[in-house]
Amino acid sequence: MEKTTLIKEGKAKRLYNTDEEGYVWVEYMDQATAFNGKRKDHIVGKGVLNNNIDTLLFTMLADNGIHTDFVKKISDNEQINKEVTIIPLETVVRNAASGSFQRKFATPYLQKFDKPVVEFFYKSDELDDPFINTNQAIALGIIKPGESEKLQEFALKINTLLKARFEKAGLELVDFKVEFGKTADGEIILADEISPDSCRLVDLKTRESFDKDVFRKQTGDLVTVYQEVLDRLNNSQEEA
Amino acid sequence: MEKTTLIKEGKAKRLYNTDEEGYVWVEYMDQATAFNGKRKDHIVGKGVLNNNIDTLLFTMLADNGIHTDFVKKISDNEQINKEVTIIPLETVVRNAASGSFQRKFATPYLQKFDKPVVEFFYKSDELDDPFINTNQAIALGIIKPGESEKLQEFALKINTLLKARFEKAGLELVDFKVEFGKTADGEIILADEISPDSCRLVDLKTRESFDKDVFRKQTGDLVTVYQEVLDRLNNSQEEA
Ligand SMILES: Nc1ncnc2c1ncn2[C@@H]1O[C@H](COP(=O)(O)OP(=O)(O)O)[C@@H](O)[C@H]1O
Ligand SMILES: Nc1ncnc2c1ncn2[C@@H]1O[C@H](COP(=O)(O)OP(=O)(O)O)[C@@H](O)[C@H]1O
Ligand SMILES: [Mg+2]
Ligand SMILES: [Mg+2]
Repeated sequence: MEKTTLIKEGKAKRLYNTDEEGYVWVEYMDQATAFNGKRKDHIVGKGVLNNNIDTLLFTMLADNGIHTDFVKKISDNEQINKEVTIIPLETVVRNAASGSFQRKFATPYLQKFDKPVVEFFYKSDELDDPFINTNQAIALGIIKPGESEKLQEFALKINTLLKARFEKAGLELVDFKVEFGKTADGEIILADEISPDSCRLVDLKTRESFDKDVFRKQTGDLVTVYQEVLDRLNNSQEEA
Repeated sequence: MEKTTLIKEGKAKRLYNTDEEGYVWVEYMDQATAFNGKRKDHIVGKGVLNNNIDTLLFTMLADNGIHTDFVKKISDNEQINKEVTIIPLETVVRNAASGSFQRKFATPYLQKFDKPVVEFFYKSDELDDPFINTNQAIALGIIKPGESEKLQEFALKINTLLKARFEKAGLELVDFKVEFGKTADGEIILADEISPDSCRLVDLKTRESFDKDVFRKQTGDLVTVYQEVLDRLNNSQEEA
């Protein structure tokens, strides 16, 4: 397969067409952004780390029956994905309070929920990714009636698998964000990426952050922390 | 029935205990607030108008099978209500885009929805009434699983009845907010008030506002506008 024209340069990845119908060529960039792109840094090594972490996690999910857009890793910082039409909703699953939830409801940091909480945000750079409910998403034509329930169920399954996998690596999955897409034949599958850019992870014992919060809050070195996540995942692979 | 101790002074009403168990004495005040209480004005005549409008609408809803907290009007600006435990959610129903929806999603003002959109806001002065979804409300213990669907269905029934009633009065119901409460035996009933404070109404022909937006945006005289709403409702009573 060869890459052809650039489809889109996002905040973390470049997407290219390929010479084979139905596939995209994804290049993980050495770029980190925060606050919806308001802060943007060049960070050498980030692309390779996220490509590796994403490959490991999408492979684990596929092995457990989750249909995903992942096809194969083709270089240190590139992979081939099935092309999908992205549903413009960021689906967030929270196991404990952090980020916007904590700010909005003034709950204690990392307070656990009895059951995971699913939220949707409308993926729109112009509107600043607003929090959206199911009825609004249907009214705006983003999803069809019934699809919200499917996405929530799908996200909760992914949460169960990711949570267990990270625990083996000594990390608590506080929350994460995923994107879903529709294939040409209308199936909804997991798309985009899962990495420390889109997960909140804390060490099971020390409660230190091992995710993009170290970049957002400028409390640590992103590459060191992402490398540690990858190492811990790799070192816990065998026991899995 | 006699009023006894003050239970609560809110932004629009004073609630008193009565000498009869299970009933509250509600006094509609001559006060208007906007932006969650940040602006507050004394407005002579408002209490009487809202008491009358609320009485007319709650009576109409009760006549159509909606269980409400309304018992009887006892003076120009007072009524007796069943005492309930208010569920701290403001339930909003929108027939067309306005207010926070329009600001958030940049949709055209008064653009109609195919189906009414229901939203919840967490009634909390400290947190500034944040927009909340069903999963969050359950996680925070505000409602139990299954109750969200009940509240939404209830709100949509109320919408159908209110919309038709206002149309007879030459007014389009753009959106409105209600509060629900639980009675001592656990039944969820419609509580609080319905008035131009909590409805967005526009003239069917001229599209002028006939609600608290004239106060929020300082585009008209609140008492003149609320009086017109009451007059139109009274004048269309017979044909109902
Ligand atoms: N399999 C796929 N098919 C089509 N588009 C995809 C796929 N996976 C991810 N995308 C999209 O690729 C774009 C680039 O990714 P990214 O840099 O993460 O963008 P963003 O700035 O939106 O976070 C995003 O719009 C994302 O939704
Ligand atoms: N039937 C009822 N039983 C108990 N409380 C009620 C009832 N109806 C309304 N309330 C509550 O009375 C309080 C006063 O009303 P209001 O002045 O409108 O308050 P707010 O400032 O919250 O808008 C509110 O907290 C409202 O939820
Ligand atoms: Mg992205
Ligand atoms: Mg009120």
